[in-house]
Amino acid sequence: MKEILQRRSIRKYLDKPVSDKDLDELLRCAMAAPSANNQQSWEFIIVKERDILNNIAKVHPDSYHMLEHAPAAIVVCGNLQKEIYKEKGFWVQDCSAATENILIKAQNLGLGAVWCGIYPIDDRVAGLRRLLNLPENIIPFSVIPLGHPAEKKPPSDRFDRSRIHMNRW
Amino acid sequence: MKEILQRRSIRKYLDKPVSDKDLDELLRCAMAAPSANNQQSWEFIIVKERDILNNIAKVHPDSYHMLEHAPAAIVVCGNLQKEIYKEKGFWVQDCSAATENILIKAQNLGLGAVWCGIYPIDDRVAGLRRLLNLPENIIPFSVIPLGHPAEKKPPSDRFDRSRIHMNRW
Repeated sequence: MKEILQRRSIRKYLDKPVSDKDLDELLRCAMAAPSANNQQSWEFIIVKERDILNNIAKVHPDSYHMLEHAPAAIVVCGNLQKEIYKEKGFWVQDCSAATENILIKAQNLGLGAVWCGIYPIDDRVAGLRRLLNLPENIIPFSVIPLGHPAEKKPPSDRFDRSRIHMNRW
Repeated sequence: MKEILQRRSIRKYLDKPVSDKDLDELLRCAMAAPSANNQQSWEFIIVKERDILNNIAKVHPDSYHMLEHAPAAIVVCGNLQKEIYKEKGFWVQDCSAATENILIKAQNLGLGAVWCGIYPIDDRVAGLRRLLNLPENIIPFSVIPLGHPAEKKPPSDRFDRSRIHMNRW
């Protein structure tokens, strides 16, 4: 399995759609993520409408150059009603694991993707909430622009032995 | 790539050590995770000492039945000094992605593993901090008991189309 080590943030995409089959596979992997007490506190919004992608880029300027040409994006959201330990915020960990699974599966499918953070930056959360018509209990967590890669990047080896400690600090 | 869909939480382990080579591969994958602004706000503590494993189980009772027989565990920690957006807590997302990568790579190596949450449950954070002698800026995030599996579980298909929304809620 080379996907984890080969995955890079891909921000440029060809003018070619992402198939519904690939989107299903990505979301099947997202929902295979572990979650706190198996609470599965996630929801996924597939965005293909050009106007919405452009509007997300306006409220999330860091994503502009990706969303400008991405044929699709997945917005991962937390569903607070699914939380078992209320107010502990484990939904953030659930949504992170789901987001990471999407990125690894995208690599496996030959797609390019990048994790753009939304939560907990207030103006991004408010902007996405408004654009996507999200109810109060649904928190936009990340947006993942997706497409067939128009750039290639070599693997980046970030292994750093100084970050590894034996038995205690 | 079948690892994402085949991964299950494995809580029973054979009496057989996890090799240093496997631990290195797990941590290489952990550090290949994406992180906010590539800040890599993580640290990893490999625990093999039986006394420490037993003591972690005491301060984190949910992990008792796993750590009792696990030959090793990795404690994933956040390093607040690495945070670029201070006080936004993106280190939680970084550590979640790193934890998920360890779980997927463990599946790939034929190892069993399970994500046991520490943060943000205060008594677990305090207990691990004390046991592992962690400085103030290092927050214990998760503990991953590891071993050669002594149980087999079929894949669990959690795909739920009702969690997928098109273009907006």
